[in-house]
Amino acid sequence: MYASIITIGDELLIGQTIDTNSAWMAQELNKIGVWVKRRVAVGDSRKDIWQALDEESQSAQIILITGGLGPTADDITKPLLCDYFAGKMVVNEMVLEHVTAIFRRLNRPIIERNMKQAEVPDVCTVLMNKRGTAPGMLFRKGNCIYISMPGVPHEMKGIMTDEVLPLLKREYKMPFILHRTLLTAGVGESFIAEKISAWEEGLPSDIKLAYLPNYGMVRLRLTATGANKEQLDEQLDHLFAELHVLVKEWLIVAEDIPLEQALGNLLLSRKKTMATAESCSGGYIAHLITAIPGSSEYFKGTVVAYAYDVKEDVLGVQHSTLETKGAVSEETVTEMLNGLLQKTTADYGIATSGVMGPGGGTDDKPVGTVWVAVGSREKMIAKRLHFRFDRLKNIELTATNALLMLFQFIEGEQDK
Amino acid sequence: MYASIITIGDELLIGQTIDTNSAWMAQELNKIGVWVKRRVAVGDSRKDIWQALDEESQSAQIILITGGLGPTADDITKPLLCDYFAGKMVVNEMVLEHVTAIFRRLNRPIIERNMKQAEVPDVCTVLMNKRGTAPGMLFRKGNCIYISMPGVPHEMKGIMTDEVLPLLKREYKMPFILHRTLLTAGVGESFIAEKISAWEEGLPSDIKLAYLPNYGMVRLRLTATGANKEQLDEQLDHLFAELHVLVKEWLIVAEDIPLEQALGNLLLSRKKTMATAESCSGGYIAHLITAIPGSSEYFKGTVVAYAYDVKEDVLGVQHSTLETKGAVSEETVTEMLNGLLQKTTADYGIATSGVMGPGGGTDDKPVGTVWVAVGSREKMIAKRLHFRFDRLKNIELTATNALLMLFQFIEGEQDK
Repeated sequence: MYASIITIGDELLIGQTIDTNSAWMAQELNKIGVWVKRRVAVGDSRKDIWQALDEESQSAQIILITGGLGPTADDITKPLLCDYFAGKMVVNEMVLEHVTAIFRRLNRPIIERNMKQAEVPDVCTVLMNKRGTAPGMLFRKGNCIYISMPGVPHEMKGIMTDEVLPLLKREYKMPFILHRTLLTAGVGESFIAEKISAWEEGLPSDIKLAYLPNYGMVRLRLTATGANKEQLDEQLDHLFAELHVLVKEWLIVAEDIPLEQALGNLLLSRKKTMATAESCSGGYIAHLITAIPGSSEYFKGTVVAYAYDVKEDVLGVQHSTLETKGAVSEETVTEMLNGLLQKTTADYGIATSGVMGPGGGTDDKPVGTVWVAVGSREKMIAKRLHFRFDRLKNIELTATNALLMLFQFIEGEQDK
Repeated sequence: MYASIITIGDELLIGQTIDTNSAWMAQELNKIGVWVKRRVAVGDSRKDIWQALDEESQSAQIILITGGLGPTADDITKPLLCDYFAGKMVVNEMVLEHVTAIFRRLNRPIIERNMKQAEVPDVCTVLMNKRGTAPGMLFRKGNCIYISMPGVPHEMKGIMTDEVLPLLKREYKMPFILHRTLLTAGVGESFIAEKISAWEEGLPSDIKLAYLPNYGMVRLRLTATGANKEQLDEQLDHLFAELHVLVKEWLIVAEDIPLEQALGNLLLSRKKTMATAESCSGGYIAHLITAIPGSSEYFKGTVVAYAYDVKEDVLGVQHSTLETKGAVSEETVTEMLNGLLQKTTADYGIATSGVMGPGGGTDDKPVGTVWVAVGSREKMIAKRLHFRFDRLKNIELTATNALLMLFQFIEGEQDK
C-alpha cells in the first residue's frame, strides 16, 4: 500500500517554513503498514496543485494533502478540490456548530469569513478537526482516496490520529513495516560498512539496511516488510542481534531514540541525576534533555552562564581564571562544573564554553573552539573540540558531543 | 527561471529525518531570483529516482538533487546518474587528492570504499566539496541543468555557496524576487484578513500576499517578482507601508526575523540586558536567544530550575511557597524572577513554570498549565496560560508567549 504526501504553500517553496508535518505523517503511516512512496511540495498555484493530484495518483493509492485550507485569500485548496472532484460547495451543519462553538469559547466575534470554514464540497466526507476551524475532507476517485487536512501541525496531527489512521486501518489490509535501529559513535560510516560488508551482502533481499550519519554518529537501520508480523519480528531480531555484535565496540544504544534519551535511561537505571552548566551551548543541552517526557526524574537543572558575571556570581568561577585563562579554557569549564556540582545536588554534570561564531574568534581560539567538561564530584574529564560550521550547527555539535562524553563517562564507571 | 529540488533517501519517507535542506536551498535560490516550483522526496529506489528526474525536468530548468552519495551500499544516486546521463565512471584526480588529504588530516586509514568517492561519471562537471568526501556533480541535458549534492546539510551548503549559486548567477539572467514580511500578535488571521480586505483586493496582480499563522502569531508576507529591482522595491515599500498602518495595533516587528531577535534588537537599542529563570521551558528560551549571533551583548544567562532544590538553592524560592502554592503558581514564578534579578545584573527577566505533559497534570493544574512572569526590578507581571498540545509544542508555546510578554513589557515602558 503506497501513500503520497502533497504539501501546499508558497512558504514551503521559498524556505520560510520547514516541513515537519511530512516526517510525522510518514512515521504514523509506517506504523500501520503504509509506505510513503513520494512527498511533493507545491506552491499556492491552482495549476501546480491540480498537476500534483493527477501525478501522485499514478504512484499511490492514498494521497494525503496538507495546507491551503485557511480562511484567507491565499488558501485555494478547498475550492480547487471541489472542482477537481466535480462537487459543489455546501454548508456542513456539524462543522458550522463546531466553528461557532470555538469562537464562543475564545470570546471572539465570528465573521462571515469564519463561517465559510463550514462550507465543504458535497462530494467529500468531512473529517472533524477538533483542534481548529478548518475541517479535514476525504474524497474518492478511481482506486485512490484523497485526504485533505490543514497545514497547522497540531491540527493535522489531531485529524490524522482521530480520523485518518483508524479509517485506513479499517479500509485496507496492510502489510507490516518493521524497523530496528541502533546508534553508534566514534567511527565513520564507510569504516562500519567495511566491517560488516560480508554480513550486509548476505542479507535477504527483502531486508534493507540504511546508514544514517549525523553529528559524527552513525545510525544503522534494518527494515523489513511483509504479511506475517511474527516471522518478520523473528527474522529482524536475529539479524539485529548479529549486527549488534558486529558493531559492539561503537554501540551507544540499540534503540531508535535520541542520545539524550539514551543518557536519561542510563541515569534512571543507575538512579542518578545530572545538571548542566552551559556557556556556548546556551541552554540547548538542557532543552534536549527536558524535551524528553519524564526527564524531571533525573534532570536537576542548568546554569546558562553566558556573561562573565554569571560565571562568577552563580557558578563561583574565579575572576582570576577568567582573566588569565579566558572563558574558553580547560580551567574555566572545570571550575564551572565544580561550581555546578556544589550548587546543586546532581550526581553528574556537563560544562561547556566555546566560541560559536560568527564573531568572537581569536588566533589561538578560533570560531568553533569548545571546551567541554563532564564528570562527578569524584572525577572530571575535559576535552577541547573544534567545529567548523555555522553558529547553530556548532551549538548542536557541542551539545551532542557533550551528551556523548557524559554517556561514555557514566558507562565507563560500571566497567571498572 | 524555475527550479525543482529532488531529495533522495528512505529516511525522508519513513519520517526518520526532517528535511531542513530544502528550505535553506529555496531561500538561497530565491535571493538570486530562482523560484522553486516543486520539491519532491523519493526513496532509495532506482525506479523512483529515475522517474523523478524525468518528471521534474518537465516543470523546471534547474534540478537540484541531494542525498544518496555516500560510500555505502544504500547510496545509489551516483551510478544511477551515470546511467541516466549515459556516462561511464572515471577517477577524478582532484577529488582523489582531496579525499586522501581529508583522511590524512583525520589520521584515519583510507580504504577502497573511500577512494570510490573520487569516481565520477565522465559526463559531469565536478563541484568540489570542501567539507566532505562526496563531490557535487553537474550534468546538462536538453534545456536543463542537474546538480547532485550530498544530503549532509553542511556539505550541501558548502557546495551551494562555493559553486552552485555563483554558477547559476553567471549562467542565467534572473528576475528579482523580493519579499517584505511583518509579524503580528494578538489577533487571528481571519480578523486581519477582514480588516485589510479592501486593501488586499486592490493589490496589483503581480504582488502576492500570504498569511502565515504560527504559535498564535501571524506573519504577513508580500512577494513581488520582476526585472526592475528599483521599481519592485519602490512598489513593495509603498504597499508594505500601507499594510504597516493597517495592522499597526498588532504589529510586533516589520522584518522577517524571529521574535527572539526582535526582542534582542529592542534590548540593544535600549542598551539593556536580560536573563531567564526557566522551569517548564527547560532552557528552550535561552537556546532561542543564544542561537542569535551577537546575543552575548544583551543576554546574561539562565537558571533552569527543574528540581525543587535548584529553585530554592540557586534562585532562592521559599520552601514554604513551593509547599503551599506549588511550583506552578504565580507566587513561585514571581519569586523565581525576583531571585534571578538578585543573582544576576540583568535588567529584565523571564520566569516560567508549568506542566508540559504528558504526565504531571492534576485537576486544578492540568497538563498545559503554565505561569509566566516577566519584568524588571521595578515592576513585574505574571500571567497564567494554558496550552493543549504535546510536550514539545507546549514548551515552544511557553517560550514564544514568554518572549512576547517581555517584548510587550519593554515596549510598553517607552509609551509611558
